[in-house]
Amino acid sequence: MKGITDAFATERLRAAHPRYLSFLTEELLPIEGQLLSMPFHEAAQMLEEKRVKARALGLWAPYLPESEGCLGLGMTEFAQVSELMAMTPFGHYVFNCQAPDIGNIELLHRHADARQQALFLAPLMEGRIRSCFGMTEPGHAGSNPVVMSTRAEIEGDEWVIDGTKWFTTGADGAAFVVVMAVTDPDAARHERASLVIVPTDTPGYRRVRNIPVMGESGEGHVSHSEIRFEGCRVPAGNLLGPRGAGFRLAQERLGPGRIHHCMRWVGISERAFDIMCRRAVSRDMGDGQRLSDKQSLQHAIAESRASIDAARYMVLHAADALDRRGAGAARHEISAIKFFVADVMLKVLDRAIQACGAMGLTDETPLSWWYRHERGARIYDGPDEVHKSSLARSILRGYAGNQSPDSKP
Amino acid sequence: MKGITDAFATERLRAAHPRYLSFLTEELLPIEGQLLSMPFHEAAQMLEEKRVKARALGLWAPYLPESEGCLGLGMTEFAQVSELMAMTPFGHYVFNCQAPDIGNIELLHRHADARQQALFLAPLMEGRIRSCFGMTEPGHAGSNPVVMSTRAEIEGDEWVIDGTKWFTTGADGAAFVVVMAVTDPDAARHERASLVIVPTDTPGYRRVRNIPVMGESGEGHVSHSEIRFEGCRVPAGNLLGPRGAGFRLAQERLGPGRIHHCMRWVGISERAFDIMCRRAVSRDMGDGQRLSDKQSLQHAIAESRASIDAARYMVLHAADALDRRGAGAARHEISAIKFFVADVMLKVLDRAIQACGAMGLTDETPLSWWYRHERGARIYDGPDEVHKSSLARSILRGYAGNQSPDSKP
Amino acid sequence: MKGITDAFATERLRAAHPRYLSFLTEELLPIEGQLLSMPFHEAAQMLEEKRVKARALGLWAPYLPESEGCLGLGMTEFAQVSELMAMTPFGHYVFNCQAPDIGNIELLHRHADARQQALFLAPLMEGRIRSCFGMTEPGHAGSNPVVMSTRAEIEGDEWVIDGTKWFTTGADGAAFVVVMAVTDPDAARHERASLVIVPTDTPGYRRVRNIPVMGESGEGHVSHSEIRFEGCRVPAGNLLGPRGAGFRLAQERLGPGRIHHCMRWVGISERAFDIMCRRAVSRDMGDGQRLSDKQSLQHAIAESRASIDAARYMVLHAADALDRRGAGAARHEISAIKFFVADVMLKVLDRAIQACGAMGLTDETPLSWWYRHERGARIYDGPDEVHKSSLARSILRGYAGNQSPDSKP
Amino acid sequence: MKGITDAFATERLRAAHPRYLSFLTEELLPIEGQLLSMPFHEAAQMLEEKRVKARALGLWAPYLPESEGCLGLGMTEFAQVSELMAMTPFGHYVFNCQAPDIGNIELLHRHADARQQALFLAPLMEGRIRSCFGMTEPGHAGSNPVVMSTRAEIEGDEWVIDGTKWFTTGADGAAFVVVMAVTDPDAARHERASLVIVPTDTPGYRRVRNIPVMGESGEGHVSHSEIRFEGCRVPAGNLLGPRGAGFRLAQERLGPGRIHHCMRWVGISERAFDIMCRRAVSRDMGDGQRLSDKQSLQHAIAESRASIDAARYMVLHAADALDRRGAGAARHEISAIKFFVADVMLKVLDRAIQACGAMGLTDETPLSWWYRHERGARIYDGPDEVHKSSLARSILRGYAGNQSPDSKP
Repeated sequence: MKGITDAFATERLRAAHPRYLSFLTEELLPIEGQLLSMPFHEAAQMLEEKRVKARALGLWAPYLPESEGCLGLGMTEFAQVSELMAMTPFGHYVFNCQAPDIGNIELLHRHADARQQALFLAPLMEGRIRSCFGMTEPGHAGSNPVVMSTRAEIEGDEWVIDGTKWFTTGADGAAFVVVMAVTDPDAARHERASLVIVPTDTPGYRRVRNIPVMGESGEGHVSHSEIRFEGCRVPAGNLLGPRGAGFRLAQERLGPGRIHHCMRWVGISERAFDIMCRRAVSRDMGDGQRLSDKQSLQHAIAESRASIDAARYMVLHAADALDRRGAGAARHEISAIKFFVADVMLKVLDRAIQACGAMGLTDETPLSWWYRHERGARIYDGPDEVHKSSLARSILRGYAGNQSPDSKP
Repeated sequence: MKGITDAFATERLRAAHPRYLSFLTEELLPIEGQLLSMPFHEAAQMLEEKRVKARALGLWAPYLPESEGCLGLGMTEFAQVSELMAMTPFGHYVFNCQAPDIGNIELLHRHADARQQALFLAPLMEGRIRSCFGMTEPGHAGSNPVVMSTRAEIEGDEWVIDGTKWFTTGADGAAFVVVMAVTDPDAARHERASLVIVPTDTPGYRRVRNIPVMGESGEGHVSHSEIRFEGCRVPAGNLLGPRGAGFRLAQERLGPGRIHHCMRWVGISERAFDIMCRRAVSRDMGDGQRLSDKQSLQHAIAESRASIDAARYMVLHAADALDRRGAGAARHEISAIKFFVADVMLKVLDRAIQACGAMGLTDETPLSWWYRHERGARIYDGPDEVHKSSLARSILRGYAGNQSPDSKP
Repeated sequence: MKGITDAFATERLRAAHPRYLSFLTEELLPIEGQLLSMPFHEAAQMLEEKRVKARALGLWAPYLPESEGCLGLGMTEFAQVSELMAMTPFGHYVFNCQAPDIGNIELLHRHADARQQALFLAPLMEGRIRSCFGMTEPGHAGSNPVVMSTRAEIEGDEWVIDGTKWFTTGADGAAFVVVMAVTDPDAARHERASLVIVPTDTPGYRRVRNIPVMGESGEGHVSHSEIRFEGCRVPAGNLLGPRGAGFRLAQERLGPGRIHHCMRWVGISERAFDIMCRRAVSRDMGDGQRLSDKQSLQHAIAESRASIDAARYMVLHAADALDRRGAGAARHEISAIKFFVADVMLKVLDRAIQACGAMGLTDETPLSWWYRHERGARIYDGPDEVHKSSLARSILRGYAGNQSPDSKP
Repeated sequence: MKGITDAFATERLRAAHPRYLSFLTEELLPIEGQLLSMPFHEAAQMLEEKRVKARALGLWAPYLPESEGCLGLGMTEFAQVSELMAMTPFGHYVFNCQAPDIGNIELLHRHADARQQALFLAPLMEGRIRSCFGMTEPGHAGSNPVVMSTRAEIEGDEWVIDGTKWFTTGADGAAFVVVMAVTDPDAARHERASLVIVPTDTPGYRRVRNIPVMGESGEGHVSHSEIRFEGCRVPAGNLLGPRGAGFRLAQERLGPGRIHHCMRWVGISERAFDIMCRRAVSRDMGDGQRLSDKQSLQHAIAESRASIDAARYMVLHAADALDRRGAGAARHEISAIKFFVADVMLKVLDRAIQACGAMGLTDETPLSWWYRHERGARIYDGPDEVHKSSLARSILRGYAGNQSPDSKP
C-alpha cells in the first residue's frame, strides 16, 4: 500500500497510519481466506475478537471525537486510514467503520436528541448493535429519491408507517432502521419526507427476504434486504431531525458517505494492485520469462498505478474541500469522485483478475469477492449516468448566457 | 434475437432456425429463473424432460450427421443455431451441445476406434453420460500446454497415469475424462503427449474438489474440478488416437471449439441486449421520461447493436473459412474471434447490468449469472494477451524482410 | 491488403480486383509522397495522366453500368474495389469515384432529365468537370437538415436563389453545384426543399472562401468552401427531380454514400495497418529487439486486424442488405456502419502513428494526412451522437409496449 | 479556468495568479485567432510588444529567482501559473517560459560557467535570442538516448563535431544549439556523451530543413528541424558541465521539463473544456434543445472535468514530491504523469472537437491547432509504451522475491 500523501499529512495521521497498517496486516490478512469462505454469522464471531482488540488499542471508530475516546480524525485524515482498512473485505467492520452504520452514527451524532442518542447511538458506537438505512424503493428510480411511496402518518403520539424498501444493506440482523418516508405529501418537492427510527422488533415491520445478488442471498452485515412496513407504529419521538428534513438529511449523509465509499474503493484498488504485482513476479510463464517481463502486464501495472494515484488525489482533495468549505461548496468535487473512482477500481480489479488467470476467478484471492460485491459501485447511490449529468448541468449553469467568440457559429 | 444472416442462409438452416427459437422461447425461458436458482442435480432432473422432448423433435445434437438421425449442420449453420441456444444458460445442455461434451463427441467421432466408440461415444451422443477433458495443470501457464507434468507410462497392457489437473470443467458427475499426459518425454516438443480415456470409476482416479469460483463451488455440469491420478491404470486400448498426438488432437479440438464458444457468446450478448431494450422501454424514470429516452442508454444500445453484429460476422466468416479451407488456413480468423467476441460480450453484459440498475445485480435476470460465469472468457483456453501476441506474430511473419518506403527512417 | 471476402466474391470481382490492386500499387503509390506535398492544382495535372490510363484500361467508374463502358459492379462488389482505391489519398479520384462527384453522378443518373444529363452528367462521368453538393448551412445543426434558410423562388421561368452554404466539399473548381433550397416553406416538414442545379458561372453565385480546416484552406477538390447565392437565377429546368423532393433525394443519396465512405475508411485502415506492420519489422529498438518483438505493438496489430475485419464485414453485409432489400430495409445496418467504421479507422490511424513514433507525425507517410483529413468522419454527414440515438430509437420502437418478465421491477 | 488548488496555495501564488489570468485574457486571447493564422515571423513581431509589457509588469520568467528580478516561484507554484499560460498557444512564449528555451535556461543556470552565462544565458533570459537542444537522431529510437551517432572530438582547444540530429524543436532562428554528442565512446554506457554549446553561425553547422509535420513545415519557434554538424568546430570552453555528463544532465533537464509539459497540457485541457462548455450553452440543436441538454455532451463534460482535475492533481503532487525530495525520489510520480496527462489532454481535445462539430475542425478555435501540434505528446520525450514499461519495472523491482499467499499457484 502507498503511504501517507505528503500534502495531507498531519502529526496525528503519521502516528495512527502505521498502527492501522500493522493491525490489518497482522491480525486480519492471515484470516481473510477463512472469513470469506464462511457465512457472516460465523465470520462475525471471529471478527468480534478482533474488534475487542482494535478497541483496546484505541483504533476504534477513529472518525469519532477524542471526547468519545476515539482519534477524532478529520475527513482527509480518516480517508487515508479508511484506504488501509479497505485492503481486506472486513477491515472497516473491525474498526466499526462499516457502511451503513458509520453513516447512521454520523447522522445520529448530529441530529439525534438525548433519548435517541441513548437508545440508538450509544450501542451503535460501541458496536453492540448494527443498523440500516431504508431509502430505495422497488418501482422507483433510486437516482430520484424525491419520488417515494412509503408513508408515515402521525396518529396520536405515534408514527404509522406503510411501505416497502429494498436493497436495504445490512437489514438482516440490524437492531433498527432509519427509514425515509413521506410525511408531508403536499409540501414542496424536497420537503415532503422525514426520517424515522424504527426498531426492527416493532410489530408491522418485516424483513421480507435477502435479495439474491450475484448468486448469493448473503446474510447479516453482508446482505441487501427487502423490508416492509405495514401499519408499523413507533413513538412520535422517533422522528430524527426536523419533520420534512428527510431529503436534506439524506443528502447531508451522502457527502461524507461518498468520500467514505470512494476511499474504500481506493484501498480495494491498492490491494488488487498489490496482488497483481505479487503475481507478476512469482508467475513463471514457461518460456524463460516471468509474467512481470510481459509488456502487457507492465502496462496494466503502470496504468493502474497512475489511475489509483489519481483516484486517491481526487478523493483527498474532495475531502479537503469538504473540510475547508463544507459539503455545499465541495459539491462538484464530491460529484466527480463517485464515478471517477468506481471506474478506476473496477478497471484495476479486472486487470488484476486477468493477471491472475484462472486463479483470479477462484476464491483464493479476494479479487473475485470484490468483483461481485463492488460492481454495484457504479449503480448504488445513483448510477454513474445520473451523477455525470448532474455534475455537467451544475457546471453548465455557470456558463448560462455565455457566448464567447469561440462559439460563434 | 436477430434472424439468419443472409449471406450464410441455407434451406436447412431456414427450416431449423425457427424450430429452435420456438423451443427455447416456449420450453426453456419460462423455467430459466427456477433453473438458475437450484443446484445442478435438481436442474438436471427438470432438464431431462426437455432433453427427451428435444430429441423427439429431431433437434438433438444438430452438428452430428444425418446418418445419426441428426441435422448434420455445417459450421456456419450450426453457429447460427448455437447462437439461439445461448439465449439461456442451459440451452446448449438441452440439445446435447454443451462443452466439454460436444468437443469430446467430435474428438471421439473422428479418432475413437470401434471399442471406444461403443463404450464412450455412443452413450455420450445419447446424453446418457457426461464427460470432461483434463488439460490444464496447477503451476503451469494454461496458455502453454506443451509444458505439462502429468505422466502416462505403459506397463504391460496398461497405462499408468500420475498427475494433477485442475479447472477440469464438468468433472463432477462425468463418466470419463479424456486426459492429456506426457507419454514420450524425450520426443520432439509437440509430440510428447498423448490422450488417454479414463473412466472416473477407475481406482487411482480421484476428483479432489470442485474449485470455488466466484463464490460458488458449483456441482455437476456447472463446476470446475481439481482431479488427481495416482497410479491410475487403464487398458492400453484407452489411448485415443496415435501415441504422441495429444497436442495435435487438442489443437484440432480447439478450432471448432473456439467457434462454438464464440457463437455462444454472441447469443449471450443478444439476450443481454434484449433484456436491456425491454428494460429501457419499461422503466419509468420518474421525471416524465422512460429510460429509453435517455441518450446514454440509447448510445449503449446502438454501440451494443453494432458490436454484436460485428462479432457475429466475425464468427460466421471464421466458420466459413473453416468450412472452406480447413482450420489451418483459417487460423488468423479463428485467433481473432476469441478475444474480439469475448470483449464484445463482456461489454454488452456490463452495459445491460448498468441499464438494469440494482436489479441487474440480482438474480432476477441471467445477467449476473453470466457476469460471473463468463468473465473467464478472456482467460480460459489461453488469455487474450497470448492470443493477441500469437495472431500478431503470425501476421508479422508475412512481413519479414519487408521494408517499404513508408518505413524508411 | 486483404483480398476478396469469400462470401461476397463474384467472377466479375475476381477479375477486377487484382487489376485495381496492380494499378494502385504500380501507378499511384510511387507518386503518393509527391502528390501529398503539392497544391491540388499541381497534383491534378499529374493525376490527369493516370486518369487517362485508368480509363483506357476499363477501370473507370466501375459503379456505372456496362452500357456506359464501365464494369457495372453491384454494391458489395464495388465496396471491395473501393477499399483498394482508398489505400492512397487520391485513389478514388483517379477512377472518378471521388465524393461528392460519385454521389452526384448517381443522383443525376437516376433523376436528371435528358437536357440535364447532356449538360451536367455527361461531362461529369467523363471526368471533364467536377461538381459539389450544397446542403449544410452556417447556424444550423448539420444533423438536422430539415431546418434550412436557403430559399429558391420561381419567378417566371427562373429559380431565384438566396442563401449561404458552407463546408461544401470541392466547390473550389466545381463546374456546378447541386443546391438544396426551400421552395415550399408551407409544405409538410420533409417536403419543403428541392434540389436545383446551379452552374458556378451563374451571376449571383459566389464562392466566398475555402474554410481553413486543420490549418489548411486547401484548394480544388481538396477543400471545403463557404458559398453564397444572392439573387442567383437559373432556368426553371434546372430543378433536379420533383419539386419538394429535395430531402428525399438527399436521403437517397446518403445510403450508398455512407457505404462508399465506410469502405473508403476500411481501405485507409488497411493501409495504416500495413504501414504499422512494415514499421514493426524494420525498426531496430537498440536493445536487441525489433519493434515487432514488443508486446504492446503486437497487441495494437492484433486488435487492429480484428477490428478492421469486423468493420469490413459490417460494411459488406450492409451493402448486401442494400443490394437485396433496398436502402429502407437496410437502414439499421447502414446506420450502424457510420459510427462503427469511423471509430475503427481513427483508432487504427492513431495506433499506426504511435507505432511510427515521431515519423508518424511527419508527412513521410500518408498517416498524418488522414489524421487531419479524416477526423471529420465522426462529424460530417451527422455526428456519431446523432446516428447512435437514431439507431437506438429505431430499435426501441420495435420494443414499444414490450415488457418481459426480465424487466418486471 | 479553475483557480488555485487549496492544498498548494501560497501567498505569492495568490498574488501572481490573477495577474497572469488578466494578462492572458486581456492581452492575448483577443489576438489569438490572428496569431494562429500568420507565419511565426509575423506573429513574433506582434508578440514582442506583449513580451515587453509582460516584463514591465514583472511577469517575466517567474521560475527565475527574485535576484533576477523575477518571481522565484517553486515548482508547485510555477505549475499553476504555467497552466494559465497554456490557455493560448503563445502564452508561454510571451513570458519567456517556452520550451526548449526554459529547459536550456535552467540547464545553463546550473551548469554554465561565467563566460557561457554571459554569452548564452544572459541574452536567453532576456528573450533577445532563442535556442534549441539537439538530442534525437534519425535511425535511433528516441526512447533510448544512450545509442547515438553524433561525435565530438577534441582537437587542440576545439571540439570538432560531426553528426545529424532531427526533430530539434525551434532550431529555425535559434542563436545556439546545445548538442549532445559522444565524446568518450569507450566509457561506461551512460558516461559516453557530453553537452556542447554550438552557436548556429558556426561554420560546419547547418539547418538542413524544417521537417514537414502534419502538413506544415512551420518556421521559427514553431518548427522541428533536421540539423547537421560537419567538422563543426567550437572552442573547448563550450563544453557545458563536466565531460561525460551529457546523459545525466539531459535526464536532470527532463524531470522539471516533464512537469512543465504536463502542466501545459492541463492548461490546454482546461481551455478545450471551456470552449466545449461555451459551445454547449450556445448551440441551438433545432429541436427545441440546446447542445447542453444532450446527455452525451453532459457526460463528455463531466468526464472531462473529472479527468482534468485528476491530471492537475497528479502533476501538482509530482511537483510537490520534486520540491520536497528531489527528482530521484519523485521518479515514480514523474514517470506516471507523462502518459496519464497526455492521454487526458488528447481525449479532452477530441471531445471538444466533437462537441463543436464541423467548426471544431476549422481554425476558428485553437482546438485544431492543438489537435495537430500536441498529438506528439504521447511520442516525444519517449513514447507512452516506454514510460509505462519503465514505471512498471521500477515498481516490480520492489516486489522481487516477494511471494505472498495470494500468488501461490
